[in-house]
Amino acid sequence: MESWLDITPHSDFSLINIPFGIITYPGAGISTPRVAVAIGDQALDLAVFSTSQGFSKLPVIQPHLHVFHEPTLNAFAALGRPVHRRVREYLQKVFTKNGPYRELLQDSQELRSVSLIKLTSVRNYLPMQIGDYTDFYVGKHHAYNVGVLFRGPANALQPNYSHLPVGYHGRASSIVVSGTSVRRPWGQILDAESSPIYHPTKRLDYELELGAFLCKSNRLGTPVALADAEDCLFGYVLLNDWSARDVQSWEYVPLGPFNAKNFASTVSAWVVLADALEPFRTEGIPNEIDVLSYLRSNVTEAVFNINLEIFLLPGGATSGSVVSRSNSCNMLWSFPQMLTHHTVGGCPMNVGDLLGSGTISGPEAGMEGSLLELTRSGSKSFDVNGVERTFLEDGDEVVLRGWCVDSNGLRLGFGECRGKILSAWVNGIASE
Amino acid sequence: MESWLDITPHSDFSLINIPFGIITYPGAGISTPRVAVAIGDQALDLAVFSTSQGFSKLPVIQPHLHVFHEPTLNAFAALGRPVHRRVREYLQKVFTKNGPYRELLQDSQELRSVSLIKLTSVRNYLPMQIGDYTDFYVGKHHAYNVGVLFRGPANALQPNYSHLPVGYHGRASSIVVSGTSVRRPWGQILDAESSPIYHPTKRLDYELELGAFLCKSNRLGTPVALADAEDCLFGYVLLNDWSARDVQSWEYVPLGPFNAKNFASTVSAWVVLADALEPFRTEGIPNEIDVLSYLRSNVTEAVFNINLEIFLLPGGATSGSVVSRSNSCNMLWSFPQMLTHHTVGGCPMNVGDLLGSGTISGPEAGMEGSLLELTRSGSKSFDVNGVERTFLEDGDEVVLRGWCVDSNGLRLGFGECRGKILSAWVNGIASE
Repeated sequence: MESWLDITPHSDFSLINIPFGIITYPGAGISTPRVAVAIGDQALDLAVFSTSQGFSKLPVIQPHLHVFHEPTLNAFAALGRPVHRRVREYLQKVFTKNGPYRELLQDSQELRSVSLIKLTSVRNYLPMQIGDYTDFYVGKHHAYNVGVLFRGPANALQPNYSHLPVGYHGRASSIVVSGTSVRRPWGQILDAESSPIYHPTKRLDYELELGAFLCKSNRLGTPVALADAEDCLFGYVLLNDWSARDVQSWEYVPLGPFNAKNFASTVSAWVVLADALEPFRTEGIPNEIDVLSYLRSNVTEAVFNINLEIFLLPGGATSGSVVSRSNSCNMLWSFPQMLTHHTVGGCPMNVGDLLGSGTISGPEAGMEGSLLELTRSGSKSFDVNGVERTFLEDGDEVVLRGWCVDSNGLRLGFGECRGKILSAWVNGIASE
Repeated sequence: MESWLDITPHSDFSLINIPFGIITYPGAGISTPRVAVAIGDQALDLAVFSTSQGFSKLPVIQPHLHVFHEPTLNAFAALGRPVHRRVREYLQKVFTKNGPYRELLQDSQELRSVSLIKLTSVRNYLPMQIGDYTDFYVGKHHAYNVGVLFRGPANALQPNYSHLPVGYHGRASSIVVSGTSVRRPWGQILDAESSPIYHPTKRLDYELELGAFLCKSNRLGTPVALADAEDCLFGYVLLNDWSARDVQSWEYVPLGPFNAKNFASTVSAWVVLADALEPFRTEGIPNEIDVLSYLRSNVTEAVFNINLEIFLLPGGATSGSVVSRSNSCNMLWSFPQMLTHHTVGGCPMNVGDLLGSGTISGPEAGMEGSLLELTRSGSKSFDVNGVERTFLEDGDEVVLRGWCVDSNGLRLGFGECRGKILSAWVNGIASE
């Protein structure tokens, strides 16, 4: 399967991917955010493509073409996984060299000229309207590493850890799309004294996570059984759960993280559909206990083999480097298990809701998904191309990357999840 | 100031109140939720009232009459407090006997017959579309009581408690309007063994709270200064933060409450505007420490003197009784302080967001805002008209009530915040 588009082998957006996003771009009055797919180094504007009869050979989508004119992916997502699958497969054929639908785009210079846009000219938006956001804590190596720092190896993991996917409600309003700068937050932190001070965080951190968007709702009081959970998962993004560690350690008792997290969380712009990841299933971290019936799965390959890395470009430096490498197989619980646990008491989920995995660290040194782990809670600095770091400094830019490689050597990636640190406001008050 | 409507002295919805809500009612095709105010034992349909030139003497609202046809109060709220104030004062005049606007409604039998509806015929809806919901923990007596149960009196309050309004992100999707039944949730609970079982909660509880809806947004990265926070507060409701205590105690370490809370939270149907509560300002619980600058207020009367009570009607019983009485002055932090702390790191708030106070218990026996406190964590049962209870049983109905009385003896109340417990699903799976 080859494309008539020029797609380099190292492109994240190959023919086996076809991720969905929300874009605008300059020219011809395209100021209204609309749905697109990314392919190679271009985006296909599905609002333009659908209006120009691009989907004329796909009857199932005909009554729903309005979804491609929406400013979020929610309406498309709500059509359900069988429709996503058909649309993705259709677009793969459209992009295939001399394929069955070659007349639609490959042979139509006119439509190509108005619907294909260089990604470098595209502005991305948050792909979904997020009603509620929940962040889990299923990266067992991360939970263990952090537990060791705070409680020692013997008590690193809490008693509940292997019995349920631990999670907490996050803040939906502060989720931003890749490329959005992140202002260093002020907050209460404990300094040398035992009383807190009002100060910009001194321990600003990232967290390497995978996020899943939902495409199906359940009503209040009606749990989603594990067998039905996969159908609710629309697609996946990279997620950077920025964290202010000093704010967190002071505020989090007894109700959990709050201002330490709600100043910003960044997601990558292109949603990789659940179907696109099917070929990359693998086993997660084995659970040594016999889990309760509602969480018991007969799916052995319940997570994905996605290579993950964290790239850090220090403020003022001309080059950065990869500071950690991990893999999304380092999860104790799968997204279907997280969703089922979330709804076991009847909590209603809505299309567009976001679930975060929690930080995904690997089992060895060099695989830490946060600076908290990498620097042993700030006690050990590290080197980025000759620049020393413990926590993030103003001007630092963090890029999360994730990709899979199939048995034919074809690559499927997530694009960047990028954010740059802006200096804190003077005196805590916005001055721009 | 007297009304031409027959308003009994014990009505919550007196002329000094004028709370806003969302309703439908039978007849004439009124199936679309719209904005109304409650007055005495009736609702005034503001969609009908405004279409019939009811607001003709209030120029400021003329460009915005569409807000009364919306299915939530968000658009009305977004007009800002000066507009809410004008609309409320205008409606007070409309309802005043032989007042300046008597021709609009008092003297118009025709408009009265189509715009005034008995509350007993009205169906209420969730008053606002809630983007994010945050629950705080500012009821100091509650925090102390619960702390004593778990850690003893010496360590009852955590070190951060007096320094910041402790809070956590709640679940917006499971907030329901008064009258919605609450299904007993399944979940993981520790029984006699040290391993959890999958079971319906055995320790179902209520929490007596005050909720505040927001009417003003702030952008990501721009904190709301304490001096500006009052302008962001649209109005108040009663809030019952139903809690599964056994689920909570097992799951909440280290990230806070999750499934113990997200199965349902109930709000009263009518939003009492912030301006209506102005005459009832009073001092909260004094904070013995010198708080950090961004939380320091020169407003001494920063909370409200609202009488609160919890009425319990046991399942199968013909009568119930009040089991606790408290007052919303039992707060260590005010809503402006909660909002400012929430945004200190730049978290964006949106119109319609809900802030909960946390459980408001009083300082003495009989003032407990939860059964956890009233029964000393289930160790001590109590009597409701001859029926014994520790935690809630199936069929039990809980009604929160709140009201103020002004210096003239006039009453302003919140209406009911009511919910009835339905039995858990058999085997945990929805069967209806």
